[in-house]
Order: sequence, then C-alpha cells, then structure tokens
Amino acid sequence: MAPPVKNAVRAAAAPTEEWSSQPEVTAAHPPKNAAGDGDRRPISTVLIIIAMQTEALPLVNKFHLSEDIDGSLFPKGVPWVRYHGIYKELHINLVWTGKDSILVEFSKFGCVLAGVDSIGTISASLVSYASIQALKPDLIINAGTAGGFKAKGACVADVYLVSNVAFHDRRIPIHVIFFCVNYLYGIGARQTFSTPNLIDELNLKVGKLSTGDSLDMSPQDEVLILANDAVVKDMEGAAVAYVADLLSVPAIFIKAVTNTVDGQKSIAEEFLQNLIAVCTTLAQTVSQVVDFISGVYQIIGIRKSTSVYRKLYINTDEYYILKIMYQFA
Amino acid sequence: MAPPVKNAVRAAAAPTEEWSSQPEVTAAHPPKNAAGDGDRRPISTVLIIIAMQTEALPLVNKFHLSEDIDGSLFPKGVPWVRYHGIYKELHINLVWTGKDSILVEFSKFGCVLAGVDSIGTISASLVSYASIQALKPDLIINAGTAGGFKAKGACVADVYLVSNVAFHDRRIPIHVIFFCVNYLYGIGARQTFSTPNLIDELNLKVGKLSTGDSLDMSPQDEVLILANDAVVKDMEGAAVAYVADLLSVPAIFIKAVTNTVDGQKSIAEEFLQNLIAVCTTLAQTVSQVVDFISGVYQIIGIRKSTSVYRKLYINTDEYYILKIMYQFA
Repeated sequence: MAPPVKNAVRAAAAPTEEWSSQPEVTAAHPPKNAAGDGDRRPISTVLIIIAMQTEALPLVNKFHLSEDIDGSLFPKGVPWVRYHGIYKELHINLVWTGKDSILVEFSKFGCVLAGVDSIGTISASLVSYASIQALKPDLIINAGTAGGFKAKGACVADVYLVSNVAFHDRRIPIHVIFFCVNYLYGIGARQTFSTPNLIDELNLKVGKLSTGDSLDMSPQDEVLILANDAVVKDMEGAAVAYVADLLSVPAIFIKAVTNTVDGQKSIAEEFLQNLIAVCTTLAQTVSQVVDFISGVYQIIGIRKSTSVYRKLYINTDEYYILKIMYQFA
Repeated sequence: MAPPVKNAVRAAAAPTEEWSSQPEVTAAHPPKNAAGDGDRRPISTVLIIIAMQTEALPLVNKFHLSEDIDGSLFPKGVPWVRYHGIYKELHINLVWTGKDSILVEFSKFGCVLAGVDSIGTISASLVSYASIQALKPDLIINAGTAGGFKAKGACVADVYLVSNVAFHDRRIPIHVIFFCVNYLYGIGARQTFSTPNLIDELNLKVGKLSTGDSLDMSPQDEVLILANDAVVKDMEGAAVAYVADLLSVPAIFIKAVTNTVDGQKSIAEEFLQNLIAVCTTLAQTVSQVVDFISGVYQIIGIRKSTSVYRKLYINTDEYYILKIMYQFA
C-alpha cells in the first residue's frame, strides 16, 4: 500500500460541486487543488461502543484495556463502563452500556443480585452521546452481534461491515406538507461512513443493518426490515448512527451474526447457543479493523455554515480520512 | 392547606424498615424522629421536557420564557431548544427536542427546507440526560399529548397524571437464571413519583402510561399495552422516566389525550385534528401543576450506599418532598 499522504487536502469550491447525499462505497479521491483550511492529524482516539459484556470482554483482553475504576467519566447512577488503553498509538476507549439493575428490584424475593445487559436503542444513544462529549473521539466503532437473513445470504458467524442503517420499529405515518416526512424521520435511514479500502483489505461482507428494540421480529417489523433491504438486524446500530450524525463523528458498524432471523430455529435459543463463539469472531474482526485504522490520517474541512450538507470519505490507498462539510447551495 | 414544614426530616434506621418497591399513591407521612442529615430547600429548578413545538409554545407563552439563543447549553449539532425564565420564584426550563433535519436532505428535490419534531424515545432520553447534566433540576415534568383507551375511560382532551410507565415495543424474551429478566428490562416498568396531594388538589385523572416509538398500535404492541394496564399511550414518557431514574431526579408525567387508540377513527387524523386544542388544555394543566409546586420544599435524605433501594415521596399536606435513598438490607 502507498505511504500516508502528508499534506492536508480539501475540496475546492465545494458548494458548487454536485456531490450525492448518499456517497457510494468507492475509492474515489477527493480533489487536491486546495490546502491549508483543514485541521489534519492522525486518528488518535477511537471509541468502541458495545451493548453486551460478552461482546466486550474479548476486546478488552485483546487490547489489554483497563477498566475506568474512578468512574469520573460518566455521572453517578449510570451503569456504563469504560475500558481504555493505548494500542498501536491509538487511544482505545471501549464503552459498554453496563448492567441494568432490574434484578436488584427482585432481590427481596430471593433472586441473586445481578443485572442484565443494557441493550437497545436508548442505552446505546445515551452512551454514544455521553462518550462523545467526554472523549471527543475521531472515530466510533459500534461492534456487536446481530441476527442475519438467510434469504439475503447471511450465515451464522459472518461478520458484516454495515453500509446503511435504519430503524424498523418506528412507525409514524403523519403527513406534513406533501411528504410523509414523519415516516422518513421514524425510519431514520442513513448511509454510514464510507470505507471502501477497509472493506477490500479485510475482505469483509458488506450489508444494510436494520435496528429495533426487540429480539424477535413482528410482521410489522418484517415489512420495514424488507423495505430497509437489511441483511442484518440488531438493537443498537441506527441509534448510535443517529447520535454520531448529530455530533458529526464518523462511525462504522461491525456486526457478527449469532442467529438467523428467517430460519427455523428459535431466535433466542440460537442467539444464546452461538453467542460466545461469535463474539470471539467479532473481536478478531474489530481487532483487524483497529490495526488497519492505526496510522490513518484525517483531514477535517472547514464548516461553511450551520446548514451543512455532509460528506465523509475514508480512502486508505492514501491513508487519509477527508471530512468535508459545506453549505447546501 | 398547612404551611410548609420548616425542619428537615428523614427516615430513621431506614435499612431495617419494610418499604415496598412500589410506593402507593397515598399521603403517607415520613417519620419525623430524626433530622439534620438531609439537604432541605425549596424546589427551585423545574425542567419541562416536551417533544413537539405545538405542545411547547403555549407553555413558553404562559410562563413568558425566553429562547436560549446563545445555544451554549447543548453541544453544536443537536436540535434541542431551551426556553427559560423565572415564574413564581421557580427557575423554569422548558426543553423541546427540536426539529429533525430530515427535510434538509430532501431539499435538493425542491422541497421546502424544514424539519419535523424530534419525537420518540431516543430524542427524549438524550434531551433528558443532557438537560439533567446541564441544569441539575429538582423536578422534571414530562408534558405531552397521548393516545387514550376508550375501554379504560379515556376521552379526547382528558389530562392524566401518570402513575406508572412502561414500554410496549421492546420484546426481549431471553431467560437468565430463573427469570426472564431481559423481558422485564425491556418492559422497563416504573412507578412514577408519588404526588397524592397534587392529584387531589387539581382533581386530575390518574392512569398508567405505555410508551413506544410508533404512532400506531400493532397487535404485538397491543398485547403489551394491555399487560401494562395502560390508559394512555405516548412516544416518550418511559424513556424520560428511565433517564430520570438513572440520575435520581424526581419526574412527573402529564399527558393530554388527542385521540383514542381503540376507537373507529384514524389515529393520525384524529391526532392532527385535536392537536392544537388539546395542547392548550395541556398547557393549562401544566401551569396549574407549576403553580402548585411553587413553594414546595424538598428534603433529600442521605445516600447510604451505591446499592440503593429508592423511595420517593411528595406530600403536599405539609409542602415537602422527601427523597430517601437507603441500602437494601
């Protein structure tokens, strides 16, 4: 591979260019005829967001991360746990959403004091927001397990890099003006950060992700999952993407298939049966992605207006990330 | 009504007492045989969380609130809007979740640049978290419109004070140990802050609220809404309750019925038809609640452990709020 590009680059006269709102997953090179307005530095701080302890621990071990024992990063009361450390000159922060205290409420009936993983969109969005505020990461990786659709080619233990996210359990059919924009808002479809060379280098499967707060799939969910053209289904991805988009932090999504959603087996049983082995596979892939990211440079273009039209590129042939934000003409 | 109690009180030997995890909505008096450990002061800062502009504006006008134009309370990029002001010696902060920029993405097709209200659980939970962190409120009021169940006695324009909240679109049937605790976590049932005298004084209807991210009601939602014994159904309440509970801030929920969920009319049509009139009614009730709160004292008991079992009381016969946190024995 070519060595890192050492000079800052940015798009010239961006407002007049015709860039798509849905960047294609290609190795397109941004223009290089202007320089100096951007803030360019290597990716330094990576935030890995994970919802289950079983998903988190193999990565904590792999990167030799330490638990944040003083708890000062987040406010008292929240169950979120940060593990951190330096790996290949990257500041790795793995934030797990922690255990919900539901069983504490039941302990008077003789049940063991414990909790369950704080899965789902609310915890994922809260942890994303709080972690971005506290850590100012250069890149977010949301890693986790997912259900896969056999009909779309997904098999247990496949690991996907997600190209698009959307929700499938937010149905808001209220029309405003001419469009059913509430419906679009509910679906929350987003293209993720484009990483064509990462995909090529690691030979990753690429697919669309649909997110909802239930492990099962109701008929109403199925309609929207099909409309979202999803290959994998999880309970956090689109929520992390929403917050990352609000706060303009590039985010990528790595999802490993524990079970098939459209198969014959019980989703919950197959999920539990494969969870530990698939989490090991997930950790291997995340580790490869982090290895790949190490040494990647980013260039942040100027923001021309608060009304912006965003375009994010990562092109690792030349080891850079270009993030251009320019006014919608 | 009796004058405010001027001496701090707290429960003595709390860990040995048998208090229910689900406090009844009664005017029970806390013990008064110990004093001095609590931090007692009048309620000063009230945070009103609202998801729709149409719901927010009548209250902004009623309380003569000013919009936070410097935008320093929240990070750049989020659409959340704070209105604030002093009303009857209370610091009123009304935070609206703002407009999502979905239509900006579509503007290149000729659509008017605009947005839709950021409704639903993710925005509600994020705004609750960020506002609590920024404002340290003494009390949260989540006010909004809701669907009502005719079969439970709800009619359009009824205003409910919510006794319990739960989710109806988070189905997580994974068993751990002997209990399906993931299921319980998903449902997220919580009793709200107990306010028996407020209910008596304002002659409010009281009922249970069920929250989900869809305006409609799928058959799967209906099963859980029935299990939640809900009279009203909204898209934010249980999410606000979750965050308020995490961060130990008392929260009350005022929901005005725009439409019936189990009626013959289209939910979306009835909702839009009644929205403005019902928002006026909602604002009147919230205003009465704020009038009632003005002058209420709170007493915060000592926290004996991070493993706590919480009990919140408001008893306005004597104008106090008692918040006791003690170790689960």
